[in-house]
Amino acid sequence: MASISGAIPEKTIERLSEYRRTLLSCHKQGITHIFSHVLAGIHGITAVQVRRDLMLIGFSSDTKKGYDVKVLIEFINNILDGDSVMNIAIIGMGHLGQALTKYFNGKGLKLRIVTAFDVDPEKVGKTIDDIPCYHMEEFEDVVSSMDISMVIISSPTRVAPTLVVPIINAGIKGVLNFTSAPLNFPQGIVSENYDITTILEKVAYFVKEGDDSGDKS
Amino acid sequence: MASISGAIPEKTIERLSEYRRTLLSCHKQGITHIFSHVLAGIHGITAVQVRRDLMLIGFSSDTKKGYDVKVLIEFINNILDGDSVMNIAIIGMGHLGQALTKYFNGKGLKLRIVTAFDVDPEKVGKTIDDIPCYHMEEFEDVVSSMDISMVIISSPTRVAPTLVVPIINAGIKGVLNFTSAPLNFPQGIVSENYDITTILEKVAYFVKEGDDSGDKS
Repeated sequence: MASISGAIPEKTIERLSEYRRTLLSCHKQGITHIFSHVLAGIHGITAVQVRRDLMLIGFSSDTKKGYDVKVLIEFINNILDGDSVMNIAIIGMGHLGQALTKYFNGKGLKLRIVTAFDVDPEKVGKTIDDIPCYHMEEFEDVVSSMDISMVIISSPTRVAPTLVVPIINAGIKGVLNFTSAPLNFPQGIVSENYDITTILEKVAYFVKEGDDSGDKS
Repeated sequence: MASISGAIPEKTIERLSEYRRTLLSCHKQGITHIFSHVLAGIHGITAVQVRRDLMLIGFSSDTKKGYDVKVLIEFINNILDGDSVMNIAIIGMGHLGQALTKYFNGKGLKLRIVTAFDVDPEKVGKTIDDIPCYHMEEFEDVVSSMDISMVIISSPTRVAPTLVVPIINAGIKGVLNFTSAPLNFPQGIVSENYDITTILEKVAYFVKEGDDSGDKS
């Protein structure tokens, strides 16, 4: 991931996002406190790791009852979330694009997919999953008028490389690319290539290796 | 990721999967050879990393013209793919489940999503995206009769924890979990929790940090 170097490492940011979802679910269930080793167990990591992550963000109110769930949620909110909602556009409103839109917008995040782009005449000009779909020709104008700072790319893989220049020109700051074409952006644009095929093939490989080598575990 | 320890590290397996997709795309375009630094550039890594990964799998036919694309694809196929197609079931045939099914099954992988499970009477008993959808009650029987070794979980998050026992009982070997509930499986089951919200929040965090700290890059 091409990222602007900050004080908090990428992996810690990922875990904070994960802790928060667990804490929100605990909070919903009426759980008020949680021990570091319980939080660690849920995430399959060590309690030392949890404590190290929370120390890194300056959270240290571990009591005899464990962490105060509500306070810790607020604390992580302050780290992860901006003051305002961040507007996101999705490029490619096919099955994956629509699924991602429904998925993210249903989660009550501080991140909102506010518009989509496509070139399919069946989609352009329509409202799909409650967001308007524009033609890619209008990309720069819409990004500017809707104050969009991030894009999610869920276009066909072959289209992805053609999106790099429009994204740079429009002043987009963050890119989450779900296609199989790895994209490189200049410094100053945070980008993550996130091809889910890779993860499927990885799990399959280790399943196969486990079978090949007998029951080693 | 809980994995059975093999000779090849997880990260290398991920990169091999990524290299292969790039190589397949090169092959389609009629490109016969590729230098390690070109492959590296496409993936935003160093040529040393590419050469190290390929050395690790015993591939060393770097010539003056670079790697032979077709030979390298075959070589990676032998590492990543089993002799036969691996059958996968998807649990939760909502928007994300359907998008994932269309996405993976359209890619010509050695991995096939062959069936779905749900509890929605609107879906159970029907064929969706060319695969049959069964009720979760039939999970163990169908897994056995269809020779399924991997599952993808795209159910609602609150349902995910209830799936652990059926998955273990059915003898599933690999789990790719897309929900926000991290799931832990006993050794011998390869599992990966892959919550896409995490990655979205991570990119958003670094975008926000970049803004906060001015244009550092």
